[in-house]
Amino acid sequence: AVVDKAADFANYFCTYAYLYHQKEMLSDRVRMDAYYTAIFENKHHFEGKTVLDVGTGSGILAIWCAQAGARKVYAVEATKMSEHARQLVIGNGVSHIVDVIEGSMEDVMLPEKVDVIISEWMGYFLLRESMFDSVICARDRFLKPTGIMYPSHARMWLAPIRSGQGEQKLLDYENAMADWNNFIEDTNDFYGVDMSVLTQPYSGEQKKYYLQTSLWNNLHPHQLIGTPFIVKEMDCLTATLDEIAIVHANFTASITIEQGRFSGFAGWFDVHFRGSPSSPASHEVELTTAPSIDNSTHWGQQVFLLHPPMRVMREDVLEGTFAMTRSKENHRLMDVQFVYKSKLSSGETTDPVTKYFCIE
Amino acid sequence: AVVDKAADFANYFCTYAYLYHQKEMLSDRVRMDAYYTAIFENKHHFEGKTVLDVGTGSGILAIWCAQAGARKVYAVEATKMSEHARQLVIGNGVSHIVDVIEGSMEDVMLPEKVDVIISEWMGYFLLRESMFDSVICARDRFLKPTGIMYPSHARMWLAPIRSGQGEQKLLDYENAMADWNNFIEDTNDFYGVDMSVLTQPYSGEQKKYYLQTSLWNNLHPHQLIGTPFIVKEMDCLTATLDEIAIVHANFTASITIEQGRFSGFAGWFDVHFRGSPSSPASHEVELTTAPSIDNSTHWGQQVFLLHPPMRVMREDVLEGTFAMTRSKENHRLMDVQFVYKSKLSSGETTDPVTKYFCIE
Ligand SMILES: Nc1ncnc2c1ncn2[C@@H]1O[C@H](CSCC[C@H](N)C(=O)O)[C@@H](O)[C@H]1O
Ligand SMILES: Nc1ncnc2c1ncn2[C@@H]1O[C@H](CSCC[C@H](N)C(=O)O)[C@@H](O)[C@H]1O
Repeated sequence: AVVDKAADFANYFCTYAYLYHQKEMLSDRVRMDAYYTAIFENKHHFEGKTVLDVGTGSGILAIWCAQAGARKVYAVEATKMSEHARQLVIGNGVSHIVDVIEGSMEDVMLPEKVDVIISEWMGYFLLRESMFDSVICARDRFLKPTGIMYPSHARMWLAPIRSGQGEQKLLDYENAMADWNNFIEDTNDFYGVDMSVLTQPYSGEQKKYYLQTSLWNNLHPHQLIGTPFIVKEMDCLTATLDEIAIVHANFTASITIEQGRFSGFAGWFDVHFRGSPSSPASHEVELTTAPSIDNSTHWGQQVFLLHPPMRVMREDVLEGTFAMTRSKENHRLMDVQFVYKSKLSSGETTDPVTKYFCIE
Repeated sequence: AVVDKAADFANYFCTYAYLYHQKEMLSDRVRMDAYYTAIFENKHHFEGKTVLDVGTGSGILAIWCAQAGARKVYAVEATKMSEHARQLVIGNGVSHIVDVIEGSMEDVMLPEKVDVIISEWMGYFLLRESMFDSVICARDRFLKPTGIMYPSHARMWLAPIRSGQGEQKLLDYENAMADWNNFIEDTNDFYGVDMSVLTQPYSGEQKKYYLQTSLWNNLHPHQLIGTPFIVKEMDCLTATLDEIAIVHANFTASITIEQGRFSGFAGWFDVHFRGSPSSPASHEVELTTAPSIDNSTHWGQQVFLLHPPMRVMREDVLEGTFAMTRSKENHRLMDVQFVYKSKLSSGETTDPVTKYFCIE
């Protein structure tokens, strides 16, 4: 799939050109603490070393790497944010170390290979935005054989949840259709055109919007009603494009509450900073976006609501498969499929259910 | 300026591919009544004639033209909405008359020239979206010398208004900057990076967002505090690209309220359906988007708020120039400049003020 650069800019990069948006990321304490600690508690990975920051944005990670003792930092940024990054680098006295380079990672040339690649490339549910593609490209072009990835590992998690949002969304959808039916009538009465052939496509559009698009959410941990499971584990040093283009996993999740409502699945990710096999971190750091009371992040969780919800009890087991591919229209968005059945504690098994979602 | 097609699609056309968005236009009674009346009260322009509908969307105007007796209607639509239009044409029994053609007006070929070009091309404050460019292109390629434009004329209006929104926007801006200052402090304290060099660009970004972007508004007629004036009049039969690329006008507006606050300008448009000189309408129709209690439209008015507002009295006169050009980054958006001074009833004249806005 060939990606049109100009459309990709209009759809994706443009928001990163706003300081407002960079500030949102810079205000995420969990995110900031993780990278900060990973760098400054593992200075041996940076002292005297060359570093590449893929998608430097405001330049924050590149500046930290310089402060941690890097000899040279190449800070690549596709948008005009690069100009602000350059000012920030100067303002913090590290312009002799950090080279801000405006361009796509896919296009830029560096004068040397690097010891460390650092990047904050994670999107909602890890892979939305497909930015890890650019990190792979950077790694394969510019990382020394002995090089280290920051972060070094990543995982995608899912868990069954309860939520009251599903009912609201169903109501929203039903209201939209009631309104449509009035509209059909009015258009016929006042303007002599019968719009009823569009009812089905309109319903499809609204269903997709209200019922089949995952939602951003900051869940309370109590909303988890079953055992979380991993659908993807990735070693950033070796992961390939093929490996991330399609995520496919079988899963089993046991219900852990006495009884209640199974409303859907929540997806999140974590990443780890562990250095590399030949140069492990002296202080491993984890960045998790799991439901949390005190440590929630701007990523939150992606929630996939099922209609209707299902009554479940302790020791019921959900069994199924999860598949995620890239949306045909926009390679940075995702299509998700769940197929699952429930093995009830009574011994019965429900019929398998298939549900589709978009991550927009 | 070369326009990248893929970016233009991502930025502009994409929304028109949703029935949801077409429905919003189809639910605008003022808009619908104007086109409906213009067509059905002037059937002599359509009976046995060939018509081109530029940007047919759902196909509504094309179907009306067929119902009014057109021999052939070419209905051109750039987005996949064309497929729904085709279904609607079939569903309303006019598929032998209406040919739905998916493509940009700039690219499609028609087998013949047409007697009438109909189009609903108007954006906020008339010219936002720059869609009239495509109508000019259609006209110059496909309208017979004796052809008629629907609508035939268009005008842009401005008037001084009062509004309480300006104070809120100023507060929003000030809050954003207070928040930024905390952010600067925190980032320094917790993460050892001094972000203060970005304060000025951040302030610029926020000012642009809160204070220099025009606002969509449905004004109450009482909010008009001075005489409306026209900044652009256009004959759709003869207008040229050059003529609409830059709008420039001198203006004078008298304050008509006893005394009060001059908060800014509101911009709107009207169009007329008058037929052509050689074939005038038998029933002229006007579609206006001026502030109104009962006949407001989805276009509303664009409001340009001035900071700070100014005290004015009856018979004060605002005098100045208005200029509108296309945004460099996106030819479908507009940059606006006001330069004005106020001739007070006391005889004094205030210093000229210059204000810039974007229409986003
Ligand atoms: N292929 C690519 N080439 C260059 N920059 C890219 C890129 N893909 C994404 N980016 C940039 O990567 C950034 C990701 S957001 C992270 C910004 C910064 N490193 C921080 O941690 O705060 C965005 O600014 C985006 O514009
Ligand atoms: N250059 C172009 N070529 C083809 N279609 C265009 C176009 N520019 C805009 N359009 C289409 O024109 C439509 C304008 S909205 C009006 C839709 C319909 N005529 C109605 O009155 O309800 C949109 O559907 C848009 O996709």
